[in-house]
Amino acid sequence: MKHETTKIPQATTKRLPLYYRFIQNFAKAGQERVSSKELSEAMKIDSATIRRDFSHFGALGKKGYGYDVQKMLAFFRNILDQDERMNVALIGVGNLGNAFLKYNFQKNHNTKIVVAFDTKAPLEGKMISGIPVYHPDALEDKFVEYGAELPILTVPSRSAQMMTDRLVKMNVRGILNFTPIRISVPDSIRVHTIDLSIELQTLIYFMRNDEE
Amino acid sequence: MKHETTKIPQATTKRLPLYYRFIQNFAKAGQERVSSKELSEAMKIDSATIRRDFSHFGALGKKGYGYDVQKMLAFFRNILDQDERMNVALIGVGNLGNAFLKYNFQKNHNTKIVVAFDTKAPLEGKMISGIPVYHPDALEDKFVEYGAELPILTVPSRSAQMMTDRLVKMNVRGILNFTPIRISVPDSIRVHTIDLSIELQTLIYFMRNDEE
Repeated sequence: MKHETTKIPQATTKRLPLYYRFIQNFAKAGQERVSSKELSEAMKIDSATIRRDFSHFGALGKKGYGYDVQKMLAFFRNILDQDERMNVALIGVGNLGNAFLKYNFQKNHNTKIVVAFDTKAPLEGKMISGIPVYHPDALEDKFVEYGAELPILTVPSRSAQMMTDRLVKMNVRGILNFTPIRISVPDSIRVHTIDLSIELQTLIYFMRNDEE
Repeated sequence: MKHETTKIPQATTKRLPLYYRFIQNFAKAGQERVSSKELSEAMKIDSATIRRDFSHFGALGKKGYGYDVQKMLAFFRNILDQDERMNVALIGVGNLGNAFLKYNFQKNHNTKIVVAFDTKAPLEGKMISGIPVYHPDALEDKFVEYGAELPILTVPSRSAQMMTDRLVKMNVRGILNFTPIRISVPDSIRVHTIDLSIELQTLIYFMRNDEE
């Protein structure tokens, strides 16, 4: 038996959630078929890339006919496990953490922050934006109690590695890291780092060089 | 005369701000030379990639000797125009925008939010976290008055393209887009999109597939 997902290149994989969102939009608009050109215009990705990506997904459409929206929807829902909920724990409720608590991934019905941790919270916990927030001393207990699987790290830099080490001991499989620290983890753990200052500086560099 | 920056590949370019930050750390620690292995361990990037990247930067070190920290510092400062300040305008002060106002890129002394816009602000403006916030009706006037160059888009999805169109008319050169909308701009304008839900879903996909 072929395992379809294992042969999808990483660059393509990174675009899966984006494809899924846009195909949902086409489905909501009542469209039955969509061409790579339409997807390209909506997603601002060139259509050659889209056709190459879709060649890894099996028979979702015919040449000159477009892709079948319902087939695509089923394919992406399945590959992204959209029916399975993922409980998120927020580690650190400062400025950015607070924004995440309020935002709480409203668009993703299957992803929710279920518990948060902050040094300013009392041991017995308190509610912020409807989410229980506990002192980090309760991390190991409450993370498990609330069924959290994915931690989002929004602590100050000085605490990033220490909290990471505790999360590693708790056998988390991945960490979404918003601190500017390059945290150390064993190879078996996925870390995705989003460093806002670095993103900003990169854009500025490209802007300045475009100008020349 | 060779233009050194034009031959640096895009993937390498994206790592420039990160290199700069880590080399600053080595300089602060008083280190005179640093090896690709040391950089690799600190940055969690494999050392072959680092050596390949550095091969584009000219003579910053000798084999078996390491890279010269002060030379690297000067090189990255120059290439990243670290001495030139970039004024940022925040478009939309909701949950995420509010977090940015408070955070205000403390680590980047040359990047500052100088003005913000929000539909809840009065026309004459008000101060939030020390930054003047105006009604979007004043966008064209105040953006110029405060010398803003780079807009960060944190408006609700429904306003994203409309605000983008106004920014395009104002001849901005780039936009940092935090909305889930793929905004349309002319080719001459750089857009960098950070879609938090998509980042989260991609990590979840990798976590689930690692497990199998």
